[in-house]
Amino acid sequence: MVFPACYARGMTNPVIAEVFRGDTPESRHRGAFIVVDATGTTVASAGDHEAAFFPRSAIKAFQCVPLIESGAAQRFGLDDAEIALCCASHSGEAEHVRVARSILAKAGIGEICLECGAHMPTAREATYDLVRHGEKPLQVHNNCSGKHAGMLALAKHLAAPLEGYVKLDHPVQQAIAATLSRYCNVNIAQAPMGIDGCSVPTWALPMNKLALGFARLADAENEAARWILRAARIHPLLIAGTDRFDTKVMQAVPRLFIKVGAEGVFCGTIAHEGLGFALKCDDGTSRGAEVAVAHMLAKLDVWNDNERQSLTIFAAQPLTNWRKISVGSVRATP
Amino acid sequence: MVFPACYARGMTNPVIAEVFRGDTPESRHRGAFIVVDATGTTVASAGDHEAAFFPRSAIKAFQCVPLIESGAAQRFGLDDAEIALCCASHSGEAEHVRVARSILAKAGIGEICLECGAHMPTAREATYDLVRHGEKPLQVHNNCSGKHAGMLALAKHLAAPLEGYVKLDHPVQQAIAATLSRYCNVNIAQAPMGIDGCSVPTWALPMNKLALGFARLADAENEAARWILRAARIHPLLIAGTDRFDTKVMQAVPRLFIKVGAEGVFCGTIAHEGLGFALKCDDGTSRGAEVAVAHMLAKLDVWNDNERQSLTIFAAQPLTNWRKISVGSVRATP
Repeated sequence: MVFPACYARGMTNPVIAEVFRGDTPESRHRGAFIVVDATGTTVASAGDHEAAFFPRSAIKAFQCVPLIESGAAQRFGLDDAEIALCCASHSGEAEHVRVARSILAKAGIGEICLECGAHMPTAREATYDLVRHGEKPLQVHNNCSGKHAGMLALAKHLAAPLEGYVKLDHPVQQAIAATLSRYCNVNIAQAPMGIDGCSVPTWALPMNKLALGFARLADAENEAARWILRAARIHPLLIAGTDRFDTKVMQAVPRLFIKVGAEGVFCGTIAHEGLGFALKCDDGTSRGAEVAVAHMLAKLDVWNDNERQSLTIFAAQPLTNWRKISVGSVRATP
Repeated sequence: MVFPACYARGMTNPVIAEVFRGDTPESRHRGAFIVVDATGTTVASAGDHEAAFFPRSAIKAFQCVPLIESGAAQRFGLDDAEIALCCASHSGEAEHVRVARSILAKAGIGEICLECGAHMPTAREATYDLVRHGEKPLQVHNNCSGKHAGMLALAKHLAAPLEGYVKLDHPVQQAIAATLSRYCNVNIAQAPMGIDGCSVPTWALPMNKLALGFARLADAENEAARWILRAARIHPLLIAGTDRFDTKVMQAVPRLFIKVGAEGVFCGTIAHEGLGFALKCDDGTSRGAEVAVAHMLAKLDVWNDNERQSLTIFAAQPLTNWRKISVGSVRATP
């Protein structure tokens, strides 16, 4: 028995965000979301929130948990910045690259052992810096390099081979699969599997189960979860980067942990209320997912006025053209 | 009375493209399309093909028609390459910039008169060239610079002010509005208006009426239309650029005229059969629109075997990750 994957269930999700040109609707984004507490009770939801979908990079926190629970992070003396980067989809800025290299150095592992592949930094200025210096991007510039450095540190701690740490049958990926099964209360063997952009396995999991896993990260007795949430709160720039949505939202609302995933995904934890959430924009578009997740969060009765106001602002993004003329907006559906 | 805009009619469009990770659906794209002949008879359709939507850059051919019909193109001695660039959303490569400057030079107009705004070239290598030389992008790098050079040439030919040629009440934009009204058989005053990325007016028009306009471009008696289609056929690299979808499709299927528009739009003409078409991906995503329009075209009974095979290949695009590992595909819905 396999989880019915997102869209295999024949349901039509509601419109969660719209793009306007002037006052006229131009495009629209459908999707689903759910907010649950640590018992799995639904606090808010829309659309098909039981179908399985690929959370992609949104679950980097769970990919980091075994690094801490195994004792590897403590053994190699990783600090909050390094734990934050292990949970990041970073922009490849100088500080991101420095911290990724620091993780590898502390674990005594060469950059060449990374198996994430190289791509130009997400941050335009970081890319232009490489171009100006005639340099090619390295694997440490990959937005997942912190996560991969952490995986390599875990492999070394487990005395497992470094080579092939991205493969499904490697102890590192097996530890991550077990973590997801435990936190999300799923049998990962039932989950459709794919290969992620950075070559590690990614599993399609039911949206409500993913949200449950994130609610459980709010457990104050859980050392690994506490460390991860604290690291993200202290280092929002390391989780994403300059001008990135996750970073700006966590800077504005430090009590929120939020993490983007490719293809229109957001997951996160509202630790002070013990809630977890998951959202996916059907079409995989980040602009739709961003305004929709901000709106979904703003409507929850768990914020002070400043926090709610910040989230409400993120729920509507103005569109300007090449001459900075206002031409429209992307707005969450009320 | 105003055209009911796209999405205001409460209809749910069908899924026209899906994204798979491995064999599991990850994301999906809804949309609508229509193919009509010059009498307005429907040849193929899906979804809400009567709602109005913003065709954006897909109608650059119609924005070029008054340049020819007024005699401006002939007066300034524009050639096929220059007419192609007037209809282009180009990548800002060296040849695009050269041809844009050539249009302006022939009309005796300075680059400073452009009002499209500047942005980095769409072509990555062209952008890196600017960065390597410490240069900022100019307005001629804007993907619409050919169209704007043509608009300026028309303004000069009409003895209208050059400044403000992008404004709705300028004779250039009024000539374009009249052209759209005539070809698409619409009263443009009923159309919702917005401002495009390059600052000119853009009107939301019913999809079936837009397709009708493109079918009428197939009229062999129409000198302007004949010139535009010939220019595009001879210069597919000028209509878009290296590795761009429109360029590759027209190189593979020269009997097809196809033009992308922002927010998931394609329009075009199948001149040898007298057909026009229009397609919009609801969510504004080009990857969904690309495979869907290729599939829609491949299914039409108007191609030879080579042409159909080429279009079928464009209807399914493989996805690879940073290490060139195959991870999935984007496919038109069968």
